Amino acid sequence: MTIYEGTMEKKGISQAVIQRLPRYYRYLEDLMDQNIDRISSSELSKRMHLTASQIRQDLNNFGGFGQQGYGYNVKNLHEEIGKILNIDREHPMIIVGAGHLGIALANYTNFRKRGFVLRGIFDSNPKLWGEKVGDLKISPMEEIESVVKQYHIRLAAICIPKDVAVPVAEKLISYGIDGLWNFAHVDLEVPDHVVTENVHLSESLMRLSYRVFEERS
Amino acid sequence: MTIYEGTMEKKGISQAVIQRLPRYYRYLEDLMDQNIDRISSSELSKRMHLTASQIRQDLNNFGGFGQQGYGYNVKNLHEEIGKILNIDREHPMIIVGAGHLGIALANYTNFRKRGFVLRGIFDSNPKLWGEKVGDLKISPMEEIESVVKQYHIRLAAICIPKDVAVPVAEKLISYGIDGLWNFAHVDLEVPDHVVTENVHLSESLMRLSYRVFEERS
Repeated sequence: MTIYEGTMEKKGISQAVIQRLPRYYRYLEDLMDQNIDRISSSELSKRMHLTASQIRQDLNNFGGFGQQGYGYNVKNLHEEIGKILNIDREHPMIIVGAGHLGIALANYTNFRKRGFVLRGIFDSNPKLWGEKVGDLKISPMEEIESVVKQYHIRLAAICIPKDVAVPVAEKLISYGIDGLWNFAHVDLEVPDHVVTENVHLSESLMRLSYRVFEERS
Repeated sequence: MTIYEGTMEKKGISQAVIQRLPRYYRYLEDLMDQNIDRISSSELSKRMHLTASQIRQDLNNFGGFGQQGYGYNVKNLHEEIGKILNIDREHPMIIVGAGHLGIALANYTNFRKRGFVLRGIFDSNPKLWGEKVGDLKISPMEEIESVVKQYHIRLAAICIPKDVAVPVAEKLISYGIDGLWNFAHVDLEVPDHVVTENVHLSESLMRLSYRVFEERS
């Protein structure tokens, strides 16, 4: 399994901060939608349920955006975090599996807003081929390779049953994919240069259920 | 925000172990599918990419299932973890929002297998009312309250846009829901007795993208 060691770590920014960045990004986006230009660390801390000192510590990593007594410049900080997260430019991606979940991801406008551009959605079921999903048509699995190579795609969402996920992931990697967003109910074994991010929905539901039914007994 | 302090904690089982239990459960399930009756901690550790001592430590919390030289009894351990996770009995739940994601969750057979029984799926769009999803029909939001009360439902998946998620969550809580599985792109503010489990897909994708595009530069 790939152990995560990012460049940020080298710059002295910890893994924990990086994990929190997408959430900062979302809150800053909300502030911009509300036409808020500046925000103090204490106000941001109230909204995000973090301590003000945690926020100051986290954001000090990026320097120059907070000024004592003036708070943070929302737009600049948003932009800077976007740069760090690499969402200031476009990233082509594909979805493998056009079941309900694959279609749900394909229709998620939030991804497009963050620079993720869907270049293909694939399924092994011939009945689905040609069906429209947004601007795209569902295509056979056999076409994945050419699309990946044409658009230099590195990101793929895996939305297929667990028994086929492993061989499909291996193929994707052989085509040049090195970022797997895995929704299949299995942990993928990948070479060191490949990164996986798992979304195991059943496990998430089990954790919720555990907390609801045990916590207050 | 609710701080998680489970009963297991009181029994001396740490939060970290509880977080790992659903994954153990899944691996044990796979072993049962492969008709494997017993497994050693070292073999399980290879499969799960944990150290054998980590596994022994984790599973020692449940006592009696591992025996030096004999390994773990897969079926018993699976059953015991199921009991701890409260999935040895049925939990009724509802889904709010019958967009692609809501439908995807409704069709997830894995949940049913783990005791989660869908009792209703609701949407504010009248065009969807009456449409079939499995054995259920999509119903108006106005019917949530009576269904929640009839089946004593405590779990709800929230699959609606973020601008309506907050008022809807408040209503759900007033009906008696105390476990929110939140897919809306917003952090819900809930009373202390309510538990939330967030699945923020955009943030997950941003983390993947960060790791793919920064890690090896």
